Amino acid sequence: MSAEPVRQRGRRPLHGEPVVDRAFSLLAAFDADHRVLTLAELSRRSEIPTSSTLRLATRLVSWGALERDDSGRYCVGLRLLEVATLAPRGHGLRQTALPFMHDLSEVTKQHVQLAVRDGMQAMLIERLSSHHAAPVEYRIGGRLPLHSTGVGLVLLAFAPQEIQEELLAKPVYSEPDNKLIKPDVLRRTLAEVRRERLAIFRREDETETIVSVAAPVFGADNTALGVLGVLVPKRVAQPRHLGLAVQTAARSISRELGARSSS
Amino acid sequence: MSAEPVRQRGRRPLHGEPVVDRAFSLLAAFDADHRVLTLAELSRRSEIPTSSTLRLATRLVSWGALERDDSGRYCVGLRLLEVATLAPRGHGLRQTALPFMHDLSEVTKQHVQLAVRDGMQAMLIERLSSHHAAPVEYRIGGRLPLHSTGVGLVLLAFAPQEIQEELLAKPVYSEPDNKLIKPDVLRRTLAEVRRERLAIFRREDETETIVSVAAPVFGADNTALGVLGVLVPKRVAQPRHLGLAVQTAARSISRELGARSSS
Repeated sequence: MSAEPVRQRGRRPLHGEPVVDRAFSLLAAFDADHRVLTLAELSRRSEIPTSSTLRLATRLVSWGALERDDSGRYCVGLRLLEVATLAPRGHGLRQTALPFMHDLSEVTKQHVQLAVRDGMQAMLIERLSSHHAAPVEYRIGGRLPLHSTGVGLVLLAFAPQEIQEELLAKPVYSEPDNKLIKPDVLRRTLAEVRRERLAIFRREDETETIVSVAAPVFGADNTALGVLGVLVPKRVAQPRHLGLAVQTAARSISRELGARSSS
Repeated sequence: MSAEPVRQRGRRPLHGEPVVDRAFSLLAAFDADHRVLTLAELSRRSEIPTSSTLRLATRLVSWGALERDDSGRYCVGLRLLEVATLAPRGHGLRQTALPFMHDLSEVTKQHVQLAVRDGMQAMLIERLSSHHAAPVEYRIGGRLPLHSTGVGLVLLAFAPQEIQEELLAKPVYSEPDNKLIKPDVLRRTLAEVRRERLAIFRREDETETIVSVAAPVFGADNTALGVLGVLVPKRVAQPRHLGLAVQTAARSISRELGARSSS
């Protein structure tokens, strides 16, 4: 990422590659709370003048990356989903994992999550939610911190050494209570996650404590490709029992992906 | 789409909006059989000279729309999945439908599909596959013909009149045996699908006949938002029994989406 030139927003004329950056700035203007945007909102959120926004958005609509609704507002288009599902780290893993995620969802009646590491964050690539499961905030395509979620801790514990050191080099804070996590404490947690091949993480929300139980998924070269997790309110959780179920399903997925069995 | 200018590929200099089209041509170079491409393959499949391909691909990598593997080859990136999951016609519908799709998958032990219409084609936005289900070719994000699949017939039957007339105005052929479908026959089929709120479609593959059973999903304004279907080998199918299960699940999804119940 350090090779990327400083983005020059605003009045820059539309020629050369910066126009590509601008096109993607339009896409980046959408998020979970802003799925449908007027031209004015799109212009403001992308920091691109209205006339250029209109011209670029028209190109994106003609390709199908954006769509317009009946009142002319913009939203992300299905054509983008068509291309995005080709991401090997997303849907390849997902397709293998999904039947096992169902089994786990049926047995636990709770949220089952599949996540991968993207740089210094976890990205949720699938979530199955039973009718009975309590509502949670995370959504597919959404990002989670590595150091204060169950799935994140597993991804961090099995990440290359330099990723762990990069994260440990800066102060990290627990969420949502925002307390400093001492590097030594985090190191010990990561060592334990590696040894047990399991993370059990408690998160105090406003109304109740949510327990996340997560286990790594390995690929053919025995590197961690992702993580499988279950989210459950503390009142119904027996984390150790859940741990065995999550580990079992994670191993089944790993075996399908060609990982060698290990003790 | 008619407003889109003829694309000028090849030697055109890189300035103005055409560069946006070129960037998306790079994304369109990937498909289910080409998930990972070298620079030379990317250049050839997108019909963009190598030097421009490298420059554009570098921009796409820095944004995260593309990623590079250990040997420098390109693939679709997770960042694109992050944006694409915001598509209201994709994941909004999908999130509502998924628990009911699980129920149907558990009961039938077969492939359960969720599709929407995108122009003159159906697009598969979710598929659940039981461990027991026979392998099928369709993938999430993939496109299916409207006139020769179960989910397609439902989407066509409940599409606006002008979409139906546009399709009926040209000769259409059955797949995979490539026989002309007479417009009158197709019109009668569509009328029956509308009346029954169900399509049962048999498709002869090389080794066996696959039956698709599909029912419409309606939204708050009682327009068809999508279609729910089950794919099952003929040897295990009792299409009428399956039909009741598919219709039940489709109604449950419609109710969650705010559709008014109708007889």
